[in-house]
Amino acid sequence: MKSFVLKGNICYSADQKTIRTVEGGYAVCADGMAKGVYETLPEEYAALPVIDHGDMLIIPGLVDLHIHAAQYAYRGTGMDMELMEWLDVNAFPEEGKFADMEYAEKAYSVFVKHMRESASTHFVVMASRYPKSTKLLMEKMEEAGLVSLVGKVNMNRGAPDYLREMSEEEAAEETRRWLVEIQGKFRHTKPVLTPRFIPSCTDGLMEILGEIRREFDLPVHSHLSENLGEIEFVRELQPDSPFYGAGYDRVSLFGKDHVTGKHFPTVMGHCIWSGEEEIRMMLENGVTVAHCPACNMNVSSGIAPIRKYLDMGLNVGLGSDIAGGHTVSLFNAMVNAVQVSKLYWRLVDQSCAAITFPEAFHLATKGGGQVFGKVGSFEDGYEFSAVVLDDSSFDRTLPLTVLQRLERAVYLSLDLYGIRAKYCCGERLF
Amino acid sequence: MKSFVLKGNICYSADQKTIRTVEGGYAVCADGMAKGVYETLPEEYAALPVIDHGDMLIIPGLVDLHIHAAQYAYRGTGMDMELMEWLDVNAFPEEGKFADMEYAEKAYSVFVKHMRESASTHFVVMASRYPKSTKLLMEKMEEAGLVSLVGKVNMNRGAPDYLREMSEEEAAEETRRWLVEIQGKFRHTKPVLTPRFIPSCTDGLMEILGEIRREFDLPVHSHLSENLGEIEFVRELQPDSPFYGAGYDRVSLFGKDHVTGKHFPTVMGHCIWSGEEEIRMMLENGVTVAHCPACNMNVSSGIAPIRKYLDMGLNVGLGSDIAGGHTVSLFNAMVNAVQVSKLYWRLVDQSCAAITFPEAFHLATKGGGQVFGKVGSFEDGYEFSAVVLDDSSFDRTLPLTVLQRLERAVYLSLDLYGIRAKYCCGERLF
Repeated sequence: MKSFVLKGNICYSADQKTIRTVEGGYAVCADGMAKGVYETLPEEYAALPVIDHGDMLIIPGLVDLHIHAAQYAYRGTGMDMELMEWLDVNAFPEEGKFADMEYAEKAYSVFVKHMRESASTHFVVMASRYPKSTKLLMEKMEEAGLVSLVGKVNMNRGAPDYLREMSEEEAAEETRRWLVEIQGKFRHTKPVLTPRFIPSCTDGLMEILGEIRREFDLPVHSHLSENLGEIEFVRELQPDSPFYGAGYDRVSLFGKDHVTGKHFPTVMGHCIWSGEEEIRMMLENGVTVAHCPACNMNVSSGIAPIRKYLDMGLNVGLGSDIAGGHTVSLFNAMVNAVQVSKLYWRLVDQSCAAITFPEAFHLATKGGGQVFGKVGSFEDGYEFSAVVLDDSSFDRTLPLTVLQRLERAVYLSLDLYGIRAKYCCGERLF
Repeated sequence: MKSFVLKGNICYSADQKTIRTVEGGYAVCADGMAKGVYETLPEEYAALPVIDHGDMLIIPGLVDLHIHAAQYAYRGTGMDMELMEWLDVNAFPEEGKFADMEYAEKAYSVFVKHMRESASTHFVVMASRYPKSTKLLMEKMEEAGLVSLVGKVNMNRGAPDYLREMSEEEAAEETRRWLVEIQGKFRHTKPVLTPRFIPSCTDGLMEILGEIRREFDLPVHSHLSENLGEIEFVRELQPDSPFYGAGYDRVSLFGKDHVTGKHFPTVMGHCIWSGEEEIRMMLENGVTVAHCPACNMNVSSGIAPIRKYLDMGLNVGLGSDIAGGHTVSLFNAMVNAVQVSKLYWRLVDQSCAAITFPEAFHLATKGGGQVFGKVGSFEDGYEFSAVVLDDSSFDRTLPLTVLQRLERAVYLSLDLYGIRAKYCCGERLF
């Protein structure tokens, strides 16, 4: 059933600064596509079945722009470290286990089950270096009915031998084989080219990846200007590069292909310390920032100047960044996005006003959704995805508006225990 | 039954930097007092009934050093404001309702029910201006089996007429009457003198409160150096005061009575912007800092330099600070304490190392517990309070240690839905 109407208290971003709420409203889905939100159901949709979610809150499925599936098992542990140490101690040993298909089966089953139960419907996922288990993850994401861009990670240096590609040729061959194998296999699960970050990829590998991207017309997902230690290291590795992002751009992995002149979706995690030139290039090339405030605190990286990015017109979404971020909750990411923007205003730059709750909600829905097309709203023409939240376990001491109920649900992490139904691309997942 | 043994995976702070965990251990409670934690149950306790909590995690009841009971109803809403605006728009109108005993009955019933269900056993509570509903709150806290210091708020300026005491004499009389009325009434619920903060209290009222404190030998609970706007305002109100805390100290409301020379417990919320003189006075007078990192982000106040305070030997605990803080979860407060300390290191002062998870756990247990005496541990001589956490809903992809399971439980907010049993002062609450 891909055509139906949801009835309930409907909330979505009308624009970047405004959440529209319709109490007891109707959100129409026709053939998997949203057809708008109405106070009274229009005559033309009267024949569609109505699913009545009563007094619950109905929001678009959330979009997680940056998540490491192969780090999920240790989330919420080992948090007392900075990024580069954290990678060596936590991330690399765990990711190395995904050479073992038995472990991958076990770990990815849990990951996908939890993604399915979460408030997110769309994901940009880093898997691990290994193509075989990455394919397994893609099969599981597809089967779960979720929408995702999944990447086999490329990394041929700066990691233990067990985890890295041992030569540029091996990396190229493995990556191409993976891409060919999964070609045309999935409806909602697509590959994304995923150089881990510049410290993990030799210049030669980066060039090859630029060619592979062109050959398969892929989007790109990576990390950028996250941590001062990392940035200093990149400067040593690429002394001739004017800034970090230029290292991706010179091999056409930064939103624009310099050979064909075409643009392609590119998601860069973090962008905390991007300078003016880098920001300008992101803007010109249409690179999307995956803002991951929890991780940026957890591994002591800093605060990304999201207000500045939004004012400049950069496209920004939110990422849980498991397991530098500890929770898959994008409600938590929204709260953290507002919170760290207030600290940024207070401690760093008072010309950057705090992000408001409606803006954070926009980041988690339409903002990130742009990477996937028209995603993250119930407005006409959007892909229809929705999450139904039951906030009846909260007290009703005060007569709250739907908007206040939504804000409370987000701040009080209702997504951890209060999701009652979930729809993705017009299909009900539960 | 106040003598028993809890069996399970027991976790408590051995010292400020170390969590001791005993897998399948025994925590002994004799007559409401802790008698230590053992790998094997000592012969002398063999006759006590053993309550077996299986593979669950057992931690001391947490201590919430700063919470506004009369703001609970709107928690998680109206967060897009800075402190002084937030007080006018959110806090004052809501607190004004507690003149109405019917509303107070409804709102405080919900508050106390949720405090009972939370992971906290000990609370330092601001109620509202009204003595009658404050007494009602105390009755309810007592009935719930929780331990608390509860304060009728004093405020005779800077608030709407409906909420403020209209004269110093009225304030004094009301406060004395409240104190006399509840004298000797409760076992676990004690009064705490609670001038809201200097912007709310005239110099004359502060002097009277200093006398009342001496007369009734009370502890003190208030706010200090939270927000730059507030601090500037205090400077205007008390131009002759060298720093904010001196305004409390000169009337003997800052940990030390200058008439008798005696010390008394004093909890000051926030202390974000305390200067060297203020810090030194806190140290000398034995003032405890209630660190409220969520609120400090939510109302754009800043980050308290907790590393510095700990290094100097100041006593520090955690506060949820409902409703500037949005959640009663002290797990969230622990995570936020670690997170903002990392941002402080990164963005403000690299001589202040981040707070570690064991340190945050110490703050939430023994650190805050000091205000109540020997509270927040299972070690011999501590008051026995405990919370039992069921983390079986989490995956066991990795073979985690008890310490890792505890860290994960805290980071993933298990206290919101995974508390299976709670003990306070040797009594089982559920």
